[in-house]
Amino acid sequence: MIVVMKTGATEEQILAVQKQVRQLGFKEQRIHGEERNVIAVLGHVYPELTDELGVIDGVDAVVRISKPFKLASREVNPYDTVVKVGPVEIGGGRVVVMGGPCSVDTEENVLVTAKAVKEAGGHLLRGGAFKPRTSPYAFRGHGEKGLQILAAARDETGLPVITEVMDPRDVDLVARYADVLQIGARNMQNFTLLDEVGRSGKPVMLKRGLNATIEEWLLAAEYILSHGNRDVILCERGIRTYETATRFTFDVNAIALVKQLSHLPVIGDPSHATGKWSLVEPVGLAAIACGADGLQIEVHPNPDQALSDGAQSLTPENFEKLMQKVAVVAEAVGRPLAPAIGAQGAARKAS
Amino acid sequence: MIVVMKTGATEEQILAVQKQVRQLGFKEQRIHGEERNVIAVLGHVYPELTDELGVIDGVDAVVRISKPFKLASREVNPYDTVVKVGPVEIGGGRVVVMGGPCSVDTEENVLVTAKAVKEAGGHLLRGGAFKPRTSPYAFRGHGEKGLQILAAARDETGLPVITEVMDPRDVDLVARYADVLQIGARNMQNFTLLDEVGRSGKPVMLKRGLNATIEEWLLAAEYILSHGNRDVILCERGIRTYETATRFTFDVNAIALVKQLSHLPVIGDPSHATGKWSLVEPVGLAAIACGADGLQIEVHPNPDQALSDGAQSLTPENFEKLMQKVAVVAEAVGRPLAPAIGAQGAARKAS
Amino acid sequence: MIVVMKTGATEEQILAVQKQVRQLGFKEQRIHGEERNVIAVLGHVYPELTDELGVIDGVDAVVRISKPFKLASREVNPYDTVVKVGPVEIGGGRVVVMGGPCSVDTEENVLVTAKAVKEAGGHLLRGGAFKPRTSPYAFRGHGEKGLQILAAARDETGLPVITEVMDPRDVDLVARYADVLQIGARNMQNFTLLDEVGRSGKPVMLKRGLNATIEEWLLAAEYILSHGNRDVILCERGIRTYETATRFTFDVNAIALVKQLSHLPVIGDPSHATGKWSLVEPVGLAAIACGADGLQIEVHPNPDQALSDGAQSLTPENFEKLMQKVAVVAEAVGRPLAPAIGAQGAARKAS
Amino acid sequence: MIVVMKTGATEEQILAVQKQVRQLGFKEQRIHGEERNVIAVLGHVYPELTDELGVIDGVDAVVRISKPFKLASREVNPYDTVVKVGPVEIGGGRVVVMGGPCSVDTEENVLVTAKAVKEAGGHLLRGGAFKPRTSPYAFRGHGEKGLQILAAARDETGLPVITEVMDPRDVDLVARYADVLQIGARNMQNFTLLDEVGRSGKPVMLKRGLNATIEEWLLAAEYILSHGNRDVILCERGIRTYETATRFTFDVNAIALVKQLSHLPVIGDPSHATGKWSLVEPVGLAAIACGADGLQIEVHPNPDQALSDGAQSLTPENFEKLMQKVAVVAEAVGRPLAPAIGAQGAARKAS
Repeated sequence: MIVVMKTGATEEQILAVQKQVRQLGFKEQRIHGEERNVIAVLGHVYPELTDELGVIDGVDAVVRISKPFKLASREVNPYDTVVKVGPVEIGGGRVVVMGGPCSVDTEENVLVTAKAVKEAGGHLLRGGAFKPRTSPYAFRGHGEKGLQILAAARDETGLPVITEVMDPRDVDLVARYADVLQIGARNMQNFTLLDEVGRSGKPVMLKRGLNATIEEWLLAAEYILSHGNRDVILCERGIRTYETATRFTFDVNAIALVKQLSHLPVIGDPSHATGKWSLVEPVGLAAIACGADGLQIEVHPNPDQALSDGAQSLTPENFEKLMQKVAVVAEAVGRPLAPAIGAQGAARKAS
Repeated sequence: MIVVMKTGATEEQILAVQKQVRQLGFKEQRIHGEERNVIAVLGHVYPELTDELGVIDGVDAVVRISKPFKLASREVNPYDTVVKVGPVEIGGGRVVVMGGPCSVDTEENVLVTAKAVKEAGGHLLRGGAFKPRTSPYAFRGHGEKGLQILAAARDETGLPVITEVMDPRDVDLVARYADVLQIGARNMQNFTLLDEVGRSGKPVMLKRGLNATIEEWLLAAEYILSHGNRDVILCERGIRTYETATRFTFDVNAIALVKQLSHLPVIGDPSHATGKWSLVEPVGLAAIACGADGLQIEVHPNPDQALSDGAQSLTPENFEKLMQKVAVVAEAVGRPLAPAIGAQGAARKAS
Repeated sequence: MIVVMKTGATEEQILAVQKQVRQLGFKEQRIHGEERNVIAVLGHVYPELTDELGVIDGVDAVVRISKPFKLASREVNPYDTVVKVGPVEIGGGRVVVMGGPCSVDTEENVLVTAKAVKEAGGHLLRGGAFKPRTSPYAFRGHGEKGLQILAAARDETGLPVITEVMDPRDVDLVARYADVLQIGARNMQNFTLLDEVGRSGKPVMLKRGLNATIEEWLLAAEYILSHGNRDVILCERGIRTYETATRFTFDVNAIALVKQLSHLPVIGDPSHATGKWSLVEPVGLAAIACGADGLQIEVHPNPDQALSDGAQSLTPENFEKLMQKVAVVAEAVGRPLAPAIGAQGAARKAS
Repeated sequence: MIVVMKTGATEEQILAVQKQVRQLGFKEQRIHGEERNVIAVLGHVYPELTDELGVIDGVDAVVRISKPFKLASREVNPYDTVVKVGPVEIGGGRVVVMGGPCSVDTEENVLVTAKAVKEAGGHLLRGGAFKPRTSPYAFRGHGEKGLQILAAARDETGLPVITEVMDPRDVDLVARYADVLQIGARNMQNFTLLDEVGRSGKPVMLKRGLNATIEEWLLAAEYILSHGNRDVILCERGIRTYETATRFTFDVNAIALVKQLSHLPVIGDPSHATGKWSLVEPVGLAAIACGADGLQIEVHPNPDQALSDGAQSLTPENFEKLMQKVAVVAEAVGRPLAPAIGAQGAARKAS
């Protein structure tokens, strides 16, 4: 940590900072700059120290040097984390695709979709039983009934299930049905929920918040990891910017950078990131090209009857076309598509 | 709702949209524009309809006309909501100030601060017992012990207490001690938490999310209102923008606009919005000048020893200076400072 | 400047950085941190050095310590700059208001507006003869004819004139008619234009770019100041954020912070910042409350016939109401409204 | 255009709007909605009409239906524009790569770089002779000397030259040396400059502004096109968002959407968009995967001695590796790399 003094800081003020740093148990080193004095703080500093030193008279700014996330960092763990979900490996060098409806509606629609996802070479079934909705008047999901519909589709197809949990009180319930717990963008900093899924022992996919910095995203992952749960998957789903022509702005820079900073797998979600089905394919391919370990894609047999987000859902036909292109681009960048889920998977149940 | 067809949409496509609109139970009216055809959808439309119509062939865009929030809207209720909190009225045409530490630390510090807030003319005591922290390694609050410290300070000073609740499981606990439940910016769209505080019957202060639009903010208020809880207070605390010289960007436009759109009271929080104590006073005065019903201000007797956010806390001396200026500006804009809390308040307890 | 080495940087890499720093003519000081090594670079560093050192093997980041703006900085010049424009002083502790139409249209409208601005106590006449327009098909201003209309209104009323210049080739022309040259937000980083107005010797008002950081804004001012032109006025006119309910987000934090960082006067423009006439008054008062030295306000006798930005223009009646409230708030914050322009001003001409 | 009346608008107010619309020469159609009345305005509306109608009493909002850009729109011209630059075709279904230094420094460095770009299969030489710099104290380019260095490298290698022009007074000069005129991000709305390059008859590459919406970007292109210059190339170079871990946020959504909205070719610039050389390759591949017609890449033989933006420059070795990957991904998405520039090109000169 670096304490930058104001240009006109007095010797007394500088000595006061040095004294305070030593009293807090750190070492310090003074640097006589051309314009200002700077004091380096040495030792295991904590983020709050920025504020504690920043308020001392004569201090202009406090600059943090070390990264605040540890367990999520590639500096701590240089080897790629591979999350195993039934027969699927996420982060193991092969591209994985999760498909399914935004909201679980009827048993028939979910089953039709799951079969289509599987036939096209998809690896997991996604679907929302608990839905975060901006308006209290919108459909908020079928709850446990929805989880049962997903589990039934898994039993039939062998596709492991990923679904969102929104409330810390529901973690046990959702974990009984799901193979991967999903934390939605609006809950990325719902810290008590992060604690609960950390304790659950289940793989967790953590979506980046609409306004989250990369550092905050990795710190949210750190919450889960700090409970000893190492099966954390990150998911970039678009950030909120001034641009309104697309629903969000898909941040490929973030995918590329997180693959350097962290050992955790990263999934791209072009459906939410664009809000338009016609952009899902090009943006999904971009995600793969810049290093994503997989995609999450909304698929619905009749997008115009979907209970939510129909405008961004692919038909099974369009999903199949997407999978063919994903296969080619994934091959081109040296991370081929993971093998399709075999018929043997059909007998598998969630543990 | 307005359905805009593409320039080259065929007559068949236009008729298909009209048919679908009628099948969904709405009336429609076709408008033959110079470049495109447009179909107006009449009736009690719901937000999802945008997506449902947007995916039909030949449709270019669907534009929503009506506002999605109802109970929070001034069109539905033109009269200013006044929230009564013990002896204090929020939203009743007089400016109210909430002061106190970001985090509750020691009983002594909180009491010293509460007394200073009261003496300077402040109206509520704020303090965090449950703290949302970006890093799992930061101090996360004293929990129930912190609530007890706040309640003791209330008993001593008569200042009603506002404190944050983060977990739906804690709502009953926090409601036993607090006079106003605070929903933090990171939980503005924690919908299960909004449902619980809606059911609690306690006044709720809803902070705007870091990235929330004004519409989303009012819809989050709508969640609480839709449970029959009418005592909702809004709080602008700065939004996240590209500018990093200040921690957030305080959105005075939003305060002015929300006072026109909604009947709910609005509080300004210049401490979090700026992140620097030296900016709290000017930005707090700006909030009052543009229509805020009050302020929430961080105060700590020793900001350099505060457990969180010391850099943005005022000393009791600076808080007193702020209150003097607030009084003058509040008077100037015709919404004078609310009367100070009398000694008789000291005996009051939370119901 | 601080060079932060990667956690696993080798001794060789560290020595290479130290050597390079010395070869470039700077002194350096090494700091052995707990996790990483850090090298302080001492001397008159330049911004590009960040990049030059950042690419060396083993370097994680380069952190700049000193502020890049000099002449605009209060550290260099602690005394408030006062810009004299005819009989008006901007930045001298009294609030100044500039009013007038967005675009100059007819001679009659401009004169009616100028008289109304003067009668209400306004100090300068604003109006656009050269208009930056997003679309090539929109009205782009009357050019020199517009400048003549403005000058005529000045001769009649005594109000000095401020008007925008967009093209370096037009600086001489505009300077012949105007008392203050305005640089619009879209041209804040039009560096050749900044050079020209710097050389012009005329007072310049520099609007903050839609996406400009405070540092970039002050650096743009530095361009003008570096030509020896000290009469620079800053103008906050709203920044672009994700919020679309108002046209831009008026950044009061920036006004308050710039008053601390710089000695230059700052004007607030609530008309462009909000895009809605009903928000101009509250947001204008907020600007004054947080430290602005004045306001720029759009006024038009018939906003619904204005050639541009009618929706944000005040009628003369509403402008008069605004001026009355500005006077009260300005008084409350200790920077009363500057004296009205006297009849004697009427004979004055631009030099 | 759709005029939305307020919920409580009177019949008189509605009739007044209808009358005004007809007086302005448009047709109108009234729609009696459940909550509000809406008036459709029919005819060749212009953008300003939004403001003119928005200020009438009782009007809540005015919604624009038609797209404001015409010549840039695929609705007007469905066929892909192909820009011919010497032996290179941009937008013709094959991927094109522009490489070179950010700033032109020495003749030797530029020539070495140009040869490396050509050998690796690159198609154009980029380099800045006039540099927009945030600080007046930074290196601002060699001017005409720099243009001569670029032209000499073109004569030697046959690579056409693309270089930035910043000042309308320099357009003729730059056009004498360059094959493509580049408009930088900070000048995207420098409208007098857009007019001049529109008149120049030279191909123009228009970089998206740091804060420009897609609509504003296409409208800026419209400025150039409206002068009869059809050779316009768009370039996405990252937008400014709240995320600071990378210099800008590369907007792949924009590339994919613009390819649908417009017939103009789109180039991706991952060097400026990321600010870090290690992210250039993954983000460049993402650009190609989502539909870009080519890339612009910074290359410098000694990035640590580059006069600007060294941190984002590739060495010739890394550029060669990038080109190999680009070739594979370009092939995978069906838009293979354009053929290399032959030796015969060496004799070519700028017309």
